[in-house]
Formats: sequence, structure tokens, C-alpha cells
Amino acid sequence: MAEVENGRGAEKAPAVAFTALKPWLVVDAPKASDAVQFYKTAFGAEEVSRVMHPKRKAEHELPLVLSAELKLGSATIVVSDLINDSSAPVKTAVTGGMFCLETEDVESAVATAVTAGAAAEGEISEGDGACCSGRVGKVKDPYGNIWLICSPPKKCADVAA
Amino acid sequence: MAEVENGRGAEKAPAVAFTALKPWLVVDAPKASDAVQFYKTAFGAEEVSRVMHPKRKAEHELPLVLSAELKLGSATIVVSDLINDSSAPVKTAVTGGMFCLETEDVESAVATAVTAGAAAEGEISEGDGACCSGRVGKVKDPYGNIWLICSPPKKCADVAA
Repeated sequence: MAEVENGRGAEKAPAVAFTALKPWLVVDAPKASDAVQFYKTAFGAEEVSRVMHPKRKAEHELPLVLSAELKLGSATIVVSDLINDSSAPVKTAVTGGMFCLETEDVESAVATAVTAGAAAEGEISEGDGACCSGRVGKVKDPYGNIWLICSPPKKCADVAA
Repeated sequence: MAEVENGRGAEKAPAVAFTALKPWLVVDAPKASDAVQFYKTAFGAEEVSRVMHPKRKAEHELPLVLSAELKLGSATIVVSDLINDSSAPVKTAVTGGMFCLETEDVESAVATAVTAGAAAEGEISEGDGACCSGRVGKVKDPYGNIWLICSPPKKCADVAA
């Protein structure tokens, strides 16, 4: 059992430090390769590395992506083919996440994503949440993920103060 | 063995720059408040800001969270109650994402998360993907999200070089 060390108060963080958080997007095999290309075109993501699945299954015509790491702005996302194999970290269907992407140019970002194949959902409007408090557009990518494209929330500093 | 490809190819980014990417976790209302507490206890997340839903519905005993922003390591996540309301940015059930969380102390991080209420899935083992190429544990949180807790992938620098 772990002991939660607690120096600064009753509801404070444990001592374990995390150095990175990477959202992991799982798509139906063998679409991960297409998805990587989509994120490059739609959001300007850059591929950092790609690891293919070592066992190419006979029923799949294309080699499967075990994990591809993409840099998207200052963040990193991971894209995988959904593989039902005991050696794979991903065994269950987890498809469809939601993400807030911040940019100074919401209109161009939405237009670029739509040109790349994303579906616009509604009009660009003013958000009122902690994340998207500026202008916000919403697109759904071909793999079931929703992207809120927002101007940076300048009011967040006041809210948190 | 896994095949490693290097993806610094010809496809280049569009001109739109993104300054942040924030995974947005949606939980069944009114559990967002509990979820925020869970992420504080399990992963040491710190709450940056919280915006409540302006219209408190009669059928809900607790006020609903429109969005709470949490700092988790160097990243930010957003947690919301799932609200079916035309004014809310979140209208569809999007529950269950997957995330890779990097830390030097996988064992303690997994143990802390489990103590906080997450379910361990399998044993801590050696990963072989682009994200989790070191030691990796897997937990599922009470809200349907899967967290791969990994040691930093030291080989990634070589892979990307």
C-alpha cells in the first residue's frame, strides 16, 4: 500500500510527480495511419515517432500502428490502432475523446480542420466556461473525437484569483 | 520486435499555431465535483478554476460544474458535468478517454491512484510503444477513463533523433 505523503494540508497532492500527460486516441484498425495524416493536415501536428505492431495479423491488409506520438502545439498526443491482442496495452474500445485546443486564430483553425475532413458543429460563438471563455468553435474529427477550438481564456487569471 | 519509423516527412503544418491542448473529461452529472476531488487525491491535480453551470436545474440536488480546470503535472485537464442544455458546450455523452501519465515512480503513482479509488488493471510491466516504452501500469478511474502510468520513455530521444 502506498502512503500518501502530505505536507501542505488535508486535500493536498501526494508526493508523486508527473512529468507529462499525453492523451491517447484509439481508432478502429487500420485507420491510425490515416488519423495521423489527418491530425497533421487539420492541426499541424508533427509526428515524433511511430511504433508498428510487431505481429501483423493476416486479416489486416495494412500493418497496424501500436502507437504514434504526435506533437501538437506544446502537447503530445498518441494515436493507436485498436488491437485486440494480449500483448497490446490497448485492449478495449476507447474511442471518442474531447479536447480544448487554444489558438489566437479560431476561424482559420476551424476552417483548416474542416478542409482536412472534420465536421463543423454549430457556429463559432462566445464560450463561458473555465476552458473556453473566449471565442470557441467545435469540430468533430473523422475518428469520433470532438475538438473545441478556442481563443486563449484571458479571464482565467481573474477567475482563479 | 516493433518497427520504428521516423515521421519527419514532407507533410508540413498549416500556419495556425496552437498554444495549448487540454483534454476534457465529461462525467455523468453531478459527479464532476467528486471527480475533481478524485483527481486531486489520485494524481495530485491542482484546481485552477471552476465555473458552475448558471442554470441550476430543479432535478439536480447539487449545482453542476460547467467546467473545472485542473493542473496535472505540466498539463491541464478540464472536468465537466454532462449537461444536456442548448447553452452548454457539451451536449453529447463523451465519457471514457485514455491518457499516458509519465512519472519516475510508477509503483507509487499506481498505488496512490488505487488507494484513491481507481481500479488497477493487470500488473506493472514493460511497455513497448512509442509512449510507454518503460515500465507501465494501468488503472481505470471511477469515471471510465483509463490512465497508463509510465516511466518516461528514455528511448524516445533516440527514436526521434
